[in-house]
Amino acid sequence: MAFRTIEWIDNTGVLRLLDQRRLPGQLVYLDLSTPDAVAEAITNMTVRGAPAIGVTAAYGMVTAARRGVDLRAADAVLRAARPTAVNLAWALDQMRGIWTHDPSALALTAKARAMEAEDIAVNRAISAHAMAVVPQGSATFFHHCNTGSLATVDLGTALGIIRTAHESGRKVLAYLDETRPRLQGAKLSAFELLQYGVPHAVVVDGASAHIMRTRHVDLCVVGCDRVAANGDTANKIGTYNLALAAADNGVPFYVAAPMSTIDRATLTGADIDIEERDPDEVLMLDSTPLAPAGTTALNLAFDVTPARLITGIITERGIIRAPYVENLARLFAGKGPGSP
Amino acid sequence: MAFRTIEWIDNTGVLRLLDQRRLPGQLVYLDLSTPDAVAEAITNMTVRGAPAIGVTAAYGMVTAARRGVDLRAADAVLRAARPTAVNLAWALDQMRGIWTHDPSALALTAKARAMEAEDIAVNRAISAHAMAVVPQGSATFFHHCNTGSLATVDLGTALGIIRTAHESGRKVLAYLDETRPRLQGAKLSAFELLQYGVPHAVVVDGASAHIMRTRHVDLCVVGCDRVAANGDTANKIGTYNLALAAADNGVPFYVAAPMSTIDRATLTGADIDIEERDPDEVLMLDSTPLAPAGTTALNLAFDVTPARLITGIITERGIIRAPYVENLARLFAGKGPGSP
Repeated sequence: MAFRTIEWIDNTGVLRLLDQRRLPGQLVYLDLSTPDAVAEAITNMTVRGAPAIGVTAAYGMVTAARRGVDLRAADAVLRAARPTAVNLAWALDQMRGIWTHDPSALALTAKARAMEAEDIAVNRAISAHAMAVVPQGSATFFHHCNTGSLATVDLGTALGIIRTAHESGRKVLAYLDETRPRLQGAKLSAFELLQYGVPHAVVVDGASAHIMRTRHVDLCVVGCDRVAANGDTANKIGTYNLALAAADNGVPFYVAAPMSTIDRATLTGADIDIEERDPDEVLMLDSTPLAPAGTTALNLAFDVTPARLITGIITERGIIRAPYVENLARLFAGKGPGSP
Repeated sequence: MAFRTIEWIDNTGVLRLLDQRRLPGQLVYLDLSTPDAVAEAITNMTVRGAPAIGVTAAYGMVTAARRGVDLRAADAVLRAARPTAVNLAWALDQMRGIWTHDPSALALTAKARAMEAEDIAVNRAISAHAMAVVPQGSATFFHHCNTGSLATVDLGTALGIIRTAHESGRKVLAYLDETRPRLQGAKLSAFELLQYGVPHAVVVDGASAHIMRTRHVDLCVVGCDRVAANGDTANKIGTYNLALAAADNGVPFYVAAPMSTIDRATLTGADIDIEERDPDEVLMLDSTPLAPAGTTALNLAFDVTPARLITGIITERGIIRAPYVENLARLFAGKGPGSP
């Protein structure tokens, strides 16, 4: 079963999104043609994953231009769709760089298409750089949430590394955190790895430390929603716990980060706005209650992993290591991580 | 809504168990009158919680005596019901101390009743000792799984501490790990705290580190299924991750442990048999699939928290601190933790 996460259909001016809320049971696509509908699809998690929502928002601006919607208003509604992933603001900033000079649908479509193509190229480069730290022969990974083709335009970031390791001929095993509350690991990452033929085992989020203690794990790979200038990394809730499990067991912990996810304007993780979502995501599974009526939940969608727990940040230009402030600054100054 | 976890009905020779698999939605009791049925109720988690399954197994021996079932065979089937909690073997050893000399139902009933009463007294003593480390005024706890009246005969171990703090007039807030895969935190601990009027919030298991980093938490309290001679503690999967979150954020981490849960014959955590349960506990919620067909899961029911992450072990005789080998030995030699 093949799928496409995001598809722009130019002749009708429609953005076609795979409805990830229906996976893995059903492959349903939604066709959207207004910026409001695109913003809602980001908010309600029809589409999720930092790189995917960036490209989705870019096409949201294209729908605005085609419909004659005020571009400033469209930008505002898309920008407010979710707070934590910086790729959303980054993509909209890129689009604004175009429409403030040329508000035509043609110009905006060209820019969105370029960003879509760039996302795939970036993911390929991340996977290629990552192979330097993935063991030859057999490689056992721990992974959190979903960071694959479903979280990007294609291939993915951290899950792309796992897939690439498999396709390179390594004997791969991937432990997949199920990733409560929305179970993106069990539902989406397992769905992808089944299709690619990558051996995997879903585990509850609380199992990571014990598994790393008692079984062989070579490395953790996770994605990110925003990397601060000091390397602190916001990612799906549970990432910080996974990083602690890795640190306590001497397992390297890598963050796969397109440079668009690195936000040098945010100095540390404490400055990152963490989205709090509906408690019912924790208390209900679809319409089935998991807890007694009257109980409340605190549903923080992301956490911040301190940079000191991160072995390396794998970007399209190479792997960045501590000290992150200096080495991320060098990266953005156009110097590769290994150059003087 | 009041409930009783375990009730022996002597005139009919029936052990009545609250079916915890139906909570919090339904309050259903099962009446059992054979050791095989009691063993099955332990295996299928009709009853769970280390102290509760110990007392349940003791009454299982009573049903055997009343039915004229071979006691050696009944002991074997009950002993094999679940591997990790040492209370099961401990309780059966206590019963064996009786039936090898007096196999009458009368003698075994008296012993089981004494163990039932002792469990409540032990839990009260644990809670009383714990108050020394619970802040006066307001106290915010983190808790894992269920360790309350549903996990014991009454009151509970770690959840008993939270309830006792509330009843002592402290302003309590309890963060409850939902505790995948079986959700004992969301289903059972929330059910109990709602009844006692204790303010609480259910959180996904991956949220603990971020909450401790960004909100005030005074202490973690957890139960245990087996404490090794060196203090390493087997408890519900996810406990080790919670302990790492606490250690990284300077939050004290306490294990509430009846002395019956301390197994000095097990030298370290590496020697504890960790039960592996059906992958469908992870992959399904009741009859709803959570992951695509064809995906596998690794479902380890417990983990082992290294003693170095444990601030103290709260027993009915006081709070034990490192060095655990020496101080647990002193405890069993009848010397209180503070005595010379």
